[in-house]
Amino acid sequence: MRMTARPENVHQTRLLRLLRDEGARSRAELGDVVHLSRSKLAVELDRLVELGLVEPAGLAASRGGRRSNIVRLSRHLRLIGIDIGATSIDVAVTDGGLEILGHVSMPCNVREGPDVVLDHALDLVGKLRGQGLIDEIHGAGIGVPGPVSFREGVPVVPPIMPGWDRFPVREVISQKLGCPVLVDNDVNLMALGEVHAGLARSAEDFLLVKIGTGVGCGIVVDGRIYRGMSGSAGDIGHIRVDDNGPTCVCGNTGCLEAYFSGAALARDALAAARSGRSAFFAQRLEQAGALTALDVADAVAAGDPVGVRMVREGGRRVGQVLAGLISFFNPGLVVIGGGVAGLGHVLLAEIRSVVYRRSPPLATGNLPIVLSELGDTAGVLGATRLISDHIFSAT
Amino acid sequence: MRMTARPENVHQTRLLRLLRDEGARSRAELGDVVHLSRSKLAVELDRLVELGLVEPAGLAASRGGRRSNIVRLSRHLRLIGIDIGATSIDVAVTDGGLEILGHVSMPCNVREGPDVVLDHALDLVGKLRGQGLIDEIHGAGIGVPGPVSFREGVPVVPPIMPGWDRFPVREVISQKLGCPVLVDNDVNLMALGEVHAGLARSAEDFLLVKIGTGVGCGIVVDGRIYRGMSGSAGDIGHIRVDDNGPTCVCGNTGCLEAYFSGAALARDALAAARSGRSAFFAQRLEQAGALTALDVADAVAAGDPVGVRMVREGGRRVGQVLAGLISFFNPGLVVIGGGVAGLGHVLLAEIRSVVYRRSPPLATGNLPIVLSELGDTAGVLGATRLISDHIFSAT
Repeated sequence: MRMTARPENVHQTRLLRLLRDEGARSRAELGDVVHLSRSKLAVELDRLVELGLVEPAGLAASRGGRRSNIVRLSRHLRLIGIDIGATSIDVAVTDGGLEILGHVSMPCNVREGPDVVLDHALDLVGKLRGQGLIDEIHGAGIGVPGPVSFREGVPVVPPIMPGWDRFPVREVISQKLGCPVLVDNDVNLMALGEVHAGLARSAEDFLLVKIGTGVGCGIVVDGRIYRGMSGSAGDIGHIRVDDNGPTCVCGNTGCLEAYFSGAALARDALAAARSGRSAFFAQRLEQAGALTALDVADAVAAGDPVGVRMVREGGRRVGQVLAGLISFFNPGLVVIGGGVAGLGHVLLAEIRSVVYRRSPPLATGNLPIVLSELGDTAGVLGATRLISDHIFSAT
Repeated sequence: MRMTARPENVHQTRLLRLLRDEGARSRAELGDVVHLSRSKLAVELDRLVELGLVEPAGLAASRGGRRSNIVRLSRHLRLIGIDIGATSIDVAVTDGGLEILGHVSMPCNVREGPDVVLDHALDLVGKLRGQGLIDEIHGAGIGVPGPVSFREGVPVVPPIMPGWDRFPVREVISQKLGCPVLVDNDVNLMALGEVHAGLARSAEDFLLVKIGTGVGCGIVVDGRIYRGMSGSAGDIGHIRVDDNGPTCVCGNTGCLEAYFSGAALARDALAAARSGRSAFFAQRLEQAGALTALDVADAVAAGDPVGVRMVREGGRRVGQVLAGLISFFNPGLVVIGGGVAGLGHVLLAEIRSVVYRRSPPLATGNLPIVLSELGDTAGVLGATRLISDHIFSAT
């Protein structure tokens, strides 16, 4: 495996991240920002060009003297983001600036185990390669729907991923793709996606709440992912909402996920269809033979009162849990994402209403609670951001 | 005001903190740890001696060659820790190594306002001075029972501190004592005390739960206090435990503090005494005319079943909230402190039981939940640690 070139010192790291986040810059402009002497800056940039990480890109407009040379990240840099969800895989390829060049996905049940699922993921990378979007791959980030030992690059006792416990995901994919690889929890990567390109760009401490098949939370402290002692930080799906609630897959009663998640919504929609309480769901069930959270979104859009009520009650439960977490963590921003975020403003209004009533005024005074604007790309984008932070670090 | 000398670079900072945390060391031993050349180390240490921060302390035993000189923090360094609670003030003086040389306290209601309360605090400093323990003061840390803007050194909308909102605590005390001063939330300072001398010395991410008149939480990330967006992080007393619970001072129903805190215990003990459910509390009430949380601790010690039940039910509520926070934060350690922690093992057993049942096994597998061993000194010690980190930093 050919090793991807890495920067050799903090100045080179700083220059690479500037070019990634701000785009092409003239040498003069870079000098203004990094506070290096002109000759020292030239040495570092020349070295980055030699390493194949940076390339010249013509002359800048004059600032009164000699025209300065523009540099940019090498156009040949390619990063892969792989987002393995409970029921789907997304794969994207970006350039060094994390612009998405191609994005493909397929349905896939994570319960099929690592061999099958990772083969599918590699097939999707092959598909992007077939589109002529990839030559050499410089790094890949992978998200999985469960707790991860970030240091070791393996899932750890992931509840909905049978067969994945301590499977060497990082090592296997690194060998197959011939590049550095990092593995993280999928919700953490969505949070990183928001840090890079979403509403959290300027937030230091924020929470990304993902409501999909399950419910999870990405925690960002000082612009970096907080993973906790054993990599399970943000695992909020089984926080108790009520002692006398429905039984959860985890065996406890009254967990948040048992009240509100993609799975819980599908269950409640089915019950409403069968009991005759909702003509909308009954008709859908007859047509499709099954119901999912997407049908609930359609019910809300169609104004079905049973669907609207389900979302409002779910939003209230999410809001209760979130109110406690906001009291505790005092974040600067909360972003709601994931499939169920498609339920949109009905959900958001209910969450906000509970949080603003139940959290301390000091914690909510300047607290925006918003829906993610990144949609399906948050996870894959976060994955490329993760690996890019790694390969753009001095070794 | 004479300015306290401060270190001038990161090497000096590192040396001061080593001497603070590890005690006197020979120059040779320090050289082994800080990776400076012998001559560079000598320059930095000589400068610290010149600044009056470090002093020679004789010769070390020979390690085979010339005997090395021992250095230690100047014996003249004096730091003050002031811990203002809801109903008491504690003041301690330490040397540079944060050894407590003297500790005095008095009952004082924080509602009397900043002028009265800070005068009392300064009187206590005077008392220590009168004991010959203080000559020059090099820095002071102050904890108050409410949210603080750490950057500005002022309380911010503190609920139980009328008259304190944005009162310039740091500035006033800094002028009176003639030294650098930092102000923080009292629970944050207890957590810092645990980091310095308690069970959290080797924990990177941990929670200090204080159960006193109210309930609060100190959050430590990577060995540093996490304060959140507006300084209210850890404000867990008003997290909802149940929709149909007792009304809280904050106006909501079912807050943790309304179920379990010094104030709630006193309320419940009074009710038990008046209703005749507990002969123990009835007798106490007759003797003393009032009941406090201390009477509940006595009831538990005496085996009064009503008292034991109050503590177990309270512990269950604290455990419920804590289980959620542990799911979210995945700490490496939880320390329970504050006055009500005197209820001891009955309380701890109940908290543990709920947490270990309700939090994800991955988060609790290696999670110790323990009672603080620092008692009343955690807050004042944390206050001196806070200011010592500050004055032992390069300017």
